[in-house]
Amino acid sequence: MMNLTTKLDHKQAAGLLLQGDNFVIICHASPDGDTLGGAYALCGALQKLQKTARVITPEKPSPRFDYLKNALVETAEIDTENEIIITVDVADKTLLGDCEKTHGDRVLLCIDHHVSNTEYAQNLLLESESSSACEVVFELIKKLSEIAGKNLMNTDIAACLYTGLSTDTGCFKFSNTNAASHRHAAELFEYGFDSANLNYLLFEMRTPERLNLERQALESVEYFFGGKCAIITLSAVMMEGADEEDLNAISSVPRQIDGVELGVTLKEKAAGIWKISLRSNSYVNSQKICAALGGGGHKRAAGCRIKGTVEECKVRILDEIGKHILDK
Amino acid sequence: MMNLTTKLDHKQAAGLLLQGDNFVIICHASPDGDTLGGAYALCGALQKLQKTARVITPEKPSPRFDYLKNALVETAEIDTENEIIITVDVADKTLLGDCEKTHGDRVLLCIDHHVSNTEYAQNLLLESESSSACEVVFELIKKLSEIAGKNLMNTDIAACLYTGLSTDTGCFKFSNTNAASHRHAAELFEYGFDSANLNYLLFEMRTPERLNLERQALESVEYFFGGKCAIITLSAVMMEGADEEDLNAISSVPRQIDGVELGVTLKEKAAGIWKISLRSNSYVNSQKICAALGGGGHKRAAGCRIKGTVEECKVRILDEIGKHILDK
Repeated sequence: MMNLTTKLDHKQAAGLLLQGDNFVIICHASPDGDTLGGAYALCGALQKLQKTARVITPEKPSPRFDYLKNALVETAEIDTENEIIITVDVADKTLLGDCEKTHGDRVLLCIDHHVSNTEYAQNLLLESESSSACEVVFELIKKLSEIAGKNLMNTDIAACLYTGLSTDTGCFKFSNTNAASHRHAAELFEYGFDSANLNYLLFEMRTPERLNLERQALESVEYFFGGKCAIITLSAVMMEGADEEDLNAISSVPRQIDGVELGVTLKEKAAGIWKISLRSNSYVNSQKICAALGGGGHKRAAGCRIKGTVEECKVRILDEIGKHILDK
Repeated sequence: MMNLTTKLDHKQAAGLLLQGDNFVIICHASPDGDTLGGAYALCGALQKLQKTARVITPEKPSPRFDYLKNALVETAEIDTENEIIITVDVADKTLLGDCEKTHGDRVLLCIDHHVSNTEYAQNLLLESESSSACEVVFELIKKLSEIAGKNLMNTDIAACLYTGLSTDTGCFKFSNTNAASHRHAAELFEYGFDSANLNYLLFEMRTPERLNLERQALESVEYFFGGKCAIITLSAVMMEGADEEDLNAISSVPRQIDGVELGVTLKEKAAGIWKISLRSNSYVNSQKICAALGGGGHKRAAGCRIKGTVEECKVRILDEIGKHILDK
């Protein structure tokens, strides 16, 4: 069966949502601030329209995102049988993880900002210039408010949307940050959420476990190719007690060292199984290196898995890196 | 002699500048991104009006700010005898350091955002709600452009102004960030400077020396008062090769640990002389603690100096902290 996706603008997507009554909004696996913030914001807005709506995540989110639930309103019992399925920030149905089998083929509307979206949903609201999915949701909520004649935004929903906008741009530092990111942030600030506390929670707070992990990561730094490549190695023991956000933050450390073009993080997922993360600054194509080792990703951020001892793992990845890093 | 300061708005300040021909713009000592960015932006704008202008700094800026000079235009020889003196981001004339004696009593216009400004200049353009002095300079340049009928903004000047705005807000993370900060950032982004590269330079790039210092700082963390206070100790040997920006960044590390209200950094400035930095999160008044030890500062960030061994130093500071941290 040919699966044709209809591309919608904000107004058409708002119209579609206004026709429904009972929604489930699904996040992607390894849920981050953008998929969660967008889902909770939309859920809260739909509830304010007297619709039944809930959020489900294929994997448990980090407890640091617990405050997102403040955007929700208490609702009557939910009919989980006849729900309209919406996804937020989910570029491909395989990213739905455990929800793929149960929901993946019945998504009515996908709201996304990834240019790589595989058009698995019946309808797609895609803004590939947006730095975050939350900005697409924000524009959609404004359009819903306009059509319904009721302001659906509030402080808690603004905090949800700011969560996705700020985390997907690395708090406005990453190269995807643009004028619209800041314009949207300014609009959200007007709702008066506690931005200082939120920024502390999202970007500054570090657990003693995280600090300990950082210390060990810094002790493990090794340089290759005249300092153009830096490798950090984290054993399973070192990562005990650290959550996904902690590990993500540490993956960007080797790339940040002055003179380093390619930063590599080796994480031991199980005995003899290493997850490799590559982050490049300007000219090395991380995706190509990882693809040669059976992995994938983007030019500036990619990953793969290698089996073996840590030494075997380093030899294989360095061999592949050598083909690319010496080009310039 | 009574020194009366006239408070100006942007239009009046622009009018004052348009009357002059020969300017020197002075930054504060320990020059940061805000004082430097604002001074170079204003200097470039005045030069575009065919005026002679230069920037001087009481202390040498970090080389990471070298790109700010791109905002300047080559000008004819400078007459340093009859210069009109402007200061940017300088709340008090003592902050002019070595320039205080030579220029401190003859400042025609001070452009600032500190509510604590001591009104030492003949004229003052103060916006105490602004998160950075650069935003005040930005509004001033827009007004200058309007009156002169010539757009004085360009990509390089926008990069200067973004430098101050982003560094003074900790890249939009600190509690002084507001809707206007983001609105100004959005406007500046429209000038198309290389924001990704700038953010890397200002917030991400870390020298191997900095990384090494961070590792040692993390190894030195000690907790007191049930984890509400964390102390980091940096000896003179550990700090070799680190610049002021590196040390500033590390001073905020202990405050970021989960559960810590007060972060303390002890830096050995010379044998037996310790510079103490306090950073609190919500209720401890750092200024009071430091004042009791002969220092000063603000509620959330303050400092003092203590002579003695590191142990003596810790005992004295912990004794004082104990009077404040157990209140809550």
